[in-house]
Amino acid sequence: MLVELMQRVDPGKWPVAPHVRHLEASIIREILKVTSQPGVISFAGGLPAPELFPLDEMTRIAADVIAKYRSNSLQYSLSQGITPFRELLAQRETREGSPTTADNILVTSGSQQAIELLARTFIDPGDYILTENPTYVGALQAFNYYRARYCTVPMDDQGMMVDQVEECIRKYKPKLVYTVSNFQNPTGITMSVARREELLNVAAKYNLPVVDDNPYSEIRFTGQPLPSLKSLGGDLVVSLRTYSKTLAPGLRIGWMNAHPSIINQFEKVRQCVDLHTSTFGQFLCYEYTAQGLLEPQIERLKVDYRHKRQAMLQRLEETFPDGVKWTRPEGGMFLWLTLPEHVSAKALLPKAIERKVAYVYGSPFFPNGGGDNCMRLNYSNATIEGIREGIARLAQLLKDNM
Amino acid sequence: MLVELMQRVDPGKWPVAPHVRHLEASIIREILKVTSQPGVISFAGGLPAPELFPLDEMTRIAADVIAKYRSNSLQYSLSQGITPFRELLAQRETREGSPTTADNILVTSGSQQAIELLARTFIDPGDYILTENPTYVGALQAFNYYRARYCTVPMDDQGMMVDQVEECIRKYKPKLVYTVSNFQNPTGITMSVARREELLNVAAKYNLPVVDDNPYSEIRFTGQPLPSLKSLGGDLVVSLRTYSKTLAPGLRIGWMNAHPSIINQFEKVRQCVDLHTSTFGQFLCYEYTAQGLLEPQIERLKVDYRHKRQAMLQRLEETFPDGVKWTRPEGGMFLWLTLPEHVSAKALLPKAIERKVAYVYGSPFFPNGGGDNCMRLNYSNATIEGIREGIARLAQLLKDNM
Repeated sequence: MLVELMQRVDPGKWPVAPHVRHLEASIIREILKVTSQPGVISFAGGLPAPELFPLDEMTRIAADVIAKYRSNSLQYSLSQGITPFRELLAQRETREGSPTTADNILVTSGSQQAIELLARTFIDPGDYILTENPTYVGALQAFNYYRARYCTVPMDDQGMMVDQVEECIRKYKPKLVYTVSNFQNPTGITMSVARREELLNVAAKYNLPVVDDNPYSEIRFTGQPLPSLKSLGGDLVVSLRTYSKTLAPGLRIGWMNAHPSIINQFEKVRQCVDLHTSTFGQFLCYEYTAQGLLEPQIERLKVDYRHKRQAMLQRLEETFPDGVKWTRPEGGMFLWLTLPEHVSAKALLPKAIERKVAYVYGSPFFPNGGGDNCMRLNYSNATIEGIREGIARLAQLLKDNM
Repeated sequence: MLVELMQRVDPGKWPVAPHVRHLEASIIREILKVTSQPGVISFAGGLPAPELFPLDEMTRIAADVIAKYRSNSLQYSLSQGITPFRELLAQRETREGSPTTADNILVTSGSQQAIELLARTFIDPGDYILTENPTYVGALQAFNYYRARYCTVPMDDQGMMVDQVEECIRKYKPKLVYTVSNFQNPTGITMSVARREELLNVAAKYNLPVVDDNPYSEIRFTGQPLPSLKSLGGDLVVSLRTYSKTLAPGLRIGWMNAHPSIINQFEKVRQCVDLHTSTFGQFLCYEYTAQGLLEPQIERLKVDYRHKRQAMLQRLEETFPDGVKWTRPEGGMFLWLTLPEHVSAKALLPKAIERKVAYVYGSPFFPNGGGDNCMRLNYSNATIEGIREGIARLAQLLKDNM
């Protein structure tokens, strides 16, 4: 190439579309960068316990998948997902109380992709989405790309305060309701049955889709299982589930359960986006579940997370100063702390990292601002010792700064 | 839920965004549905030969990956792709003549996702993209979602007729050039070195990104390898590559090579979309390549596809009527037939299926219309016997209808 022409090449000047130029890098990712320093006890991430991944089982399952499904396990496959896997997931959802067929299922590359497909399918710039306040930051990131706006409903220990939903619908005419009904990320709160029914009634009145982002429901380690929004609300509900919290997030396998007319829209979009989810990954999850290995794996997770959550709650009670409140989740991976109003969790983070302990501050979870005095703590990815030491460090930090 | 409220629920009436409502289902997929009937010899798909998937090697590699990388192989990982894999890909590209570091690489879930990320990052509604005419239909599907328009440049046996590019740039001010420079899908044509240099010179003059969708370059079974657009054009070129045509499409592993400022944009977008590509799938491709298994696998493919392509060319010569022309690709998976002007390949397809042979007609590959008298034939997914019989059937069909 001519040298003088080559000098004109400047990829930094290629005209990036405005909706991408204005996209913020993930705040959580920035926090994780800062907090993943050696020696830091981190409650910041949302990672499953790596020591519980069933490595030996997965080695055997990978061999079984190739032996049984041969070249089909490595070939292109349907955008909606491989048929035996969709049938298995449908049977599982049916057993759990939601009558489901393979036509209701779309396999996704993790729940994040399901949220993205939802946003792409339903959200035009400026559309409102009704969410809990706070809500899952990864969903906000997917929705923000489409320039969604948010009408938010506060939470108490029963979940979304549903008596405020109808006013919100009338005022903002949202395109959909987005909820994390079980062991919510970030708060750990679960929506009560009465609230579920109330939410579905008001949403049905307006034929408003209720999206239940439900990655944690299997990881309940205390209290009674509740009927899912999908089982109560039928076609009104689009439920999003995943193997990321039960088997392994690195496989990127999740699924949606929705009315076939919606699945068809998603499938059409899916073809443009990335054709389909890894065939091999789908067969791994299928075979692992079909061989009856998933339930014992979930039991192991429950025992471990129950201990870790218990250790964290106990240590909070032993060490934390008055004036701090926290949730007591019955499952999932997160606790939520509320500090006195004047204390900024964001401002405290650099000091925490100096003392070798880390968390995610609350404000990114509030789509319309606020939450400066909140923090999210993860207990699934630490050791019991780390939890005891880390919480004590955090307690001392708060005592010194409150 | 109250019965009368439940009656108001109708997912068919949920307001799907206009850009999705108007999205067409994949034409190729519709054709594949029609053509995948029992007994039909199909040259329609673009699938690798399933009998060549290295099943035993993959069983061993899966075990090796879990044994070596333990829980890291199943955990969340970086949006840009796992570091050792990016380093290996960078070394490989450097050896091939494009100085590359891990910072230039973004791992994608197949090339389709790379095309989608490109479109998302650069295309605003109404923007023009400069393409060959015809061009890859899967790329058009990804671009169409963003309501791209197309300025097209015809091809001859040397590839895109580059002397028409500058006029096209001046007239339509495209956002990028999209080319499949090696063994193009659908035509099988490879761009000559002179044309490559000419294209890069004119694109550099306007600092216009050249996207080289390059899934087939490794599968050259005759003639001399040519320097890639990336190796000639440096930062001007975004190259897209994949393991789908060499190892297995079902793993959904591809990669982009671009300037770090562009990779950073893609990575930001990627976080919203699906977090990252399967960690396990990346480790499988990494380990397979690092153990030196990829090159022998590619050699096996070349031998097989060379035979199949030769059988198809020979049979075309033996049986086809005068007035039909075809390309003689030096690699890749496709041949391109041009029938006499008045013959519609689309109108003939139902008759072909009656005679138990199938192909993809040409028109979907022409973004601004035309190509009715063209058809694409795939030779990688059939047997030699099937090729001989299928081409004879097609020849008789043409003789009866020309």
